Amino acid sequence: MSEDLEKCSLVVCSGDMDKVMAGFIIATTAASMGRETTMFFTFWGIKAIQKGNRTGSSFFERMLGVMNRGGIDRIGPSKFNFGGMGRWMFKKMMKDKGVTMLPELRQTAIDLGIRLLACQMSMDVMGIKREDLIDEVEDVVGAATYCDLALQGKTMFI
Amino acid sequence: MSEDLEKCSLVVCSGDMDKVMAGFIIATTAASMGRETTMFFTFWGIKAIQKGNRTGSSFFERMLGVMNRGGIDRIGPSKFNFGGMGRWMFKKMMKDKGVTMLPELRQTAIDLGIRLLACQMSMDVMGIKREDLIDEVEDVVGAATYCDLALQGKTMFI
Amino acid sequence: MSEDLEKCSLVVCSGDMDKVMAGFIIATTAASMGRETTMFFTFWGIKAIQKGNRTGSSFFERMLGVMNRGGIDRIGPSKFNFGGMGRWMFKKMMKDKGVTMLPELRQTAIDLGIRLLACQMSMDVMGIKREDLIDEVEDVVGAATYCDLALQGKTMFI
Repeated sequence: MSEDLEKCSLVVCSGDMDKVMAGFIIATTAASMGRETTMFFTFWGIKAIQKGNRTGSSFFERMLGVMNRGGIDRIGPSKFNFGGMGRWMFKKMMKDKGVTMLPELRQTAIDLGIRLLACQMSMDVMGIKREDLIDEVEDVVGAATYCDLALQGKTMFI
Repeated sequence: MSEDLEKCSLVVCSGDMDKVMAGFIIATTAASMGRETTMFFTFWGIKAIQKGNRTGSSFFERMLGVMNRGGIDRIGPSKFNFGGMGRWMFKKMMKDKGVTMLPELRQTAIDLGIRLLACQMSMDVMGIKREDLIDEVEDVVGAATYCDLALQGKTMFI
Repeated sequence: MSEDLEKCSLVVCSGDMDKVMAGFIIATTAASMGRETTMFFTFWGIKAIQKGNRTGSSFFERMLGVMNRGGIDRIGPSKFNFGGMGRWMFKKMMKDKGVTMLPELRQTAIDLGIRLLACQMSMDVMGIKREDLIDEVEDVVGAATYCDLALQGKTMFI
């Protein structure tokens, strides 16, 4: 097996429930198959690794912080969200079927040793600070650091 | 050529016309170039391999089945859909230019021997049954089976 | 290093600010690390390489041209756009933080020798002509030409 096959990395740019969930499922599956797996969270994807507190200091940052508030528990589906109703409905449907929910999937990712990285630029733009992210985030890095990692293995953009 | 280059697999997570179309175009092109190609349909992407009948048995499942009804013929663009108007407009524009439409693209994929797989978990959550999918779907599998396939070749997340 | 690792190609199918930006950032980083990088713009992604003039000749094409007008300067975020307000807000937030904006990122991509390719079929469908695209676009190609390129290296679908 070449080095290319041993690593797996995902760019999570979307903050939609379906995409973030797909990301965590692929990552945890890859990791449990022994691949060295990294997840790089950028733009809306950062919501998946936020604590959920209000963020930002400037007016626009705080406005965005309110609109996008809540961390992984408030992530809604990309379709039929209807201001949160769809999120609630999907959560209920998943619970009824015994499907692992986002917070547990993220915990599994952490337990499996998946590296969680946050995008420096997105955090700067949106006024999100290191302390707004969950402690398990390994590092806040730039695109160069990430690409260096990503270009060595299998990469998916989500 | 290494094994890594010979296989190609796509995760179709989106149910938007533009994304699903791009997926089928890339897959059929790869297959016609001799690559062993697999498409794994998950979340909204499952619409592309549904027969189009109403689905679900619980209240929420049936509600979702109604909102997301219709199979591949009712897939609309990710922008400017306007409750179906955009879908109709795009279909007309494509027909006028002699572009292959989604149902024909899917048939080409089938004729080229592309493996169509459906995501077990998404189907469970949304209450979609095997008989709601077109017969040509080879199998309904979990993330582990899919990742095992995907990590052996070139992978795209759509 | 195998040939597979030396090339990098991106399919830009989305026309959202966050996605297009992520695409240009990944592409320019890869290119500055010495990878032979190609960007293939399809569907809404084509907006990122348009001059910004009104496009189309048939009624539907012109209608779509109006709805989707403006080129790279009018690209808005995938969430919280609110008819352009979000675009303005994000641009301001990025400027305040000294983040490189889309037009400059695209120029960097051009300066680094990244190949910009446009999807023939999407242009046909939407009635966009070669002269509606910026001069730096190297070629307008079909899916087969693109896939031939893409399958030789690392590929991401955005």
